[in-house]
Amino acid sequence: MVRLSQITGRSGEEVMAALGEVAPDFARYIFEFGYGDVYSRPGLDLRTRMLATVAGLVALGHAERELTVHIGSALNVGATREEVVEVIMQMALYAGFPAALDALLIAKKVFAARDAAPPAAPPPAAPPAP
Amino acid sequence: MVRLSQITGRSGEEVMAALGEVAPDFARYIFEFGYGDVYSRPGLDLRTRMLATVAGLVALGHAERELTVHIGSALNVGATREEVVEVIMQMALYAGFPAALDALLIAKKVFAARDAAPPAAPPPAAPPAP
Amino acid sequence: MVRLSQITGRSGEEVMAALGEVAPDFARYIFEFGYGDVYSRPGLDLRTRMLATVAGLVALGHAERELTVHIGSALNVGATREEVVEVIMQMALYAGFPAALDALLIAKKVFAARDAAPPAAPPPAAPPAP
Amino acid sequence: MVRLSQITGRSGEEVMAALGEVAPDFARYIFEFGYGDVYSRPGLDLRTRMLATVAGLVALGHAERELTVHIGSALNVGATREEVVEVIMQMALYAGFPAALDALLIAKKVFAARDAAPPAAPPPAAPPAP
Amino acid sequence: MVRLSQITGRSGEEVMAALGEVAPDFARYIFEFGYGDVYSRPGLDLRTRMLATVAGLVALGHAERELTVHIGSALNVGATREEVVEVIMQMALYAGFPAALDALLIAKKVFAARDAAPPAAPPPAAPPAP
Amino acid sequence: MVRLSQITGRSGEEVMAALGEVAPDFARYIFEFGYGDVYSRPGLDLRTRMLATVAGLVALGHAERELTVHIGSALNVGATREEVVEVIMQMALYAGFPAALDALLIAKKVFAARDAAPPAAPPPAAPPAP
Repeated sequence: MVRLSQITGRSGEEVMAALGEVAPDFARYIFEFGYGDVYSRPGLDLRTRMLATVAGLVALGHAERELTVHIGSALNVGATREEVVEVIMQMALYAGFPAALDALLIAKKVFAARDAAPPAAPPPAAPPAP
Repeated sequence: MVRLSQITGRSGEEVMAALGEVAPDFARYIFEFGYGDVYSRPGLDLRTRMLATVAGLVALGHAERELTVHIGSALNVGATREEVVEVIMQMALYAGFPAALDALLIAKKVFAARDAAPPAAPPPAAPPAP
Repeated sequence: MVRLSQITGRSGEEVMAALGEVAPDFARYIFEFGYGDVYSRPGLDLRTRMLATVAGLVALGHAERELTVHIGSALNVGATREEVVEVIMQMALYAGFPAALDALLIAKKVFAARDAAPPAAPPPAAPPAP
Repeated sequence: MVRLSQITGRSGEEVMAALGEVAPDFARYIFEFGYGDVYSRPGLDLRTRMLATVAGLVALGHAERELTVHIGSALNVGATREEVVEVIMQMALYAGFPAALDALLIAKKVFAARDAAPPAAPPPAAPPAP
Repeated sequence: MVRLSQITGRSGEEVMAALGEVAPDFARYIFEFGYGDVYSRPGLDLRTRMLATVAGLVALGHAERELTVHIGSALNVGATREEVVEVIMQMALYAGFPAALDALLIAKKVFAARDAAPPAAPPPAAPPAP
Repeated sequence: MVRLSQITGRSGEEVMAALGEVAPDFARYIFEFGYGDVYSRPGLDLRTRMLATVAGLVALGHAERELTVHIGSALNVGATREEVVEVIMQMALYAGFPAALDALLIAKKVFAARDAAPPAAPPPAAPPAP
């Protein structure tokens, strides 16, 4: 099974903690179904999976929190900043320039936060957001 | 520059031909901007680009024609059927089960059409849909 | 108050009739609120209103029936085919190429249907779809 | 655990069968996660759950297949036709008239199909679509 | 006719006041069409109506202000916190985890605000947001 | 070719500058494709183009930054405040009241900012956002 902390680092944990009070089972579903079932599947490497997730989140248009988490996740599992930017730019063709522009500005913030405080080695095995 | 027929095969050409009468410049934009500018960029391989496009189209929810074309495009540039299915299934987490279910049923049709008539070697250099 | 048949011609009537059996009050809301309240407002001419409606429907991505009706409505109130096509193409910037491409192919059908059977002078005063 | 056939009747089974060839695990996720985990939860009655699902599907705008299945599901678990129509009409306020109009025309078809061939007592315990 | 203040409490009034300067007729449409026409209809109880509205708003994905108002509205007309949470969680199946997660975090804020300052008896008869 | 500063004034420049570090080519695409190709086309006047863009952005539901820029753009190219408000209100019919309400509150802010500091004569020829 996928080491979940390997994917989202600490940002996923924070979301889970915030969620726990109001809907603890939802956090469990994200953990069991999102990571246990879907992301642990063979048949597609994690780097491509996370770049596909970034693409899907750009197309949704309203998923700022998730984009922040998963642009980080993509970098955590081996995608480069350039690849993340390419995927987002490409989505302008399919979801329009505003959705891509919003996502590029989010990517800029994620990159800057990492330059200021590079992510530590991921913690042992904490539940993340999908 | 990207050999466009390499991406969509004949399905893109048909869309362009249908479009040509009502909005010929739009076909040109797809050709020049979509393929000439975006898909020809270095920094991300075509296989990952097309899987990201499939992810984005699933998330849009309404892009049946484009999904049909670009599930084929993903296979044309080296993705496997399994990889296409994995990307679509994963989008259920982000765009819901109905969007993923619709896309899986489209993939099933694309796979069946290829089993019935495998795509020929791509034509020399025709304008495709993005 | 706006002569509603002036806007949609017969296509609106057909939708209303289909709707009448299952939700007659909904047809009335479309008539009273959509046309009586909103489209009858001063402050913006009907041609610009209908072109804005076409733009909004393209951006929704899933409104094929409404696009068919209101591309016709735009032509009925004085917009040219070229103007309709320009509005749709422009939406590629904001809603992506697939949404614009779908709408252009719908416009092509509407134009062809009018070439085959030009719309008669609108009927006296029938309830249309918004 | 929820008797799934109780919810969707036969329509869910057909979707699952179509899906099985291309993505059998996805059918299993719908069965285990959608019905086993979510719909089996206490805390909200099935009739209200299915009316909420109809509302959500109308708001998505592109979920015709699911709307067809779950308008039926809502009736199967005790909602009236009038309640289904009220929920759909109300969504015009939040998702616009086109999304509600499309859904009302789908409801009309579902009602007509039931008048022509009333659903039999549900089959024993088959996997449905969520 | 529905006592509107009964639905939204004070939060609706604030939105209406903000709106009044720029588009007073829009506030009137919300009042007359949204509450006068739609929410006052017989055929579905207010508690189910508001839970359906919460479902629809989650599916839209971008309606944070409205979700804040109408999670409160649902509680005002008799739904429990647990029921609100169940409806939101269920929408993960249809609109994806990010939309449901955002809505759960909004619900958490609404619940906390009510714990800090329980809603007074609703004011006599003020125009609310739909 | 369209004098771009004529459309967005300074607000477009700021977005471009923010974008430049992370994706300079994307800024170029907006400049060349968005303004050079699409907005410079004959066949539709700029005032109608910008009102159509406002309509499309309302329908997207998530494009707050772009709405802020392009409500200003519409005013810059000759639309009146009343016309902008009419276009937004009309979108309630197609995209729902929450999307229109959000946009009206954005318009209110744009109008107030202009009352406080009227836009200067546009700068010579700077790259804007589409």
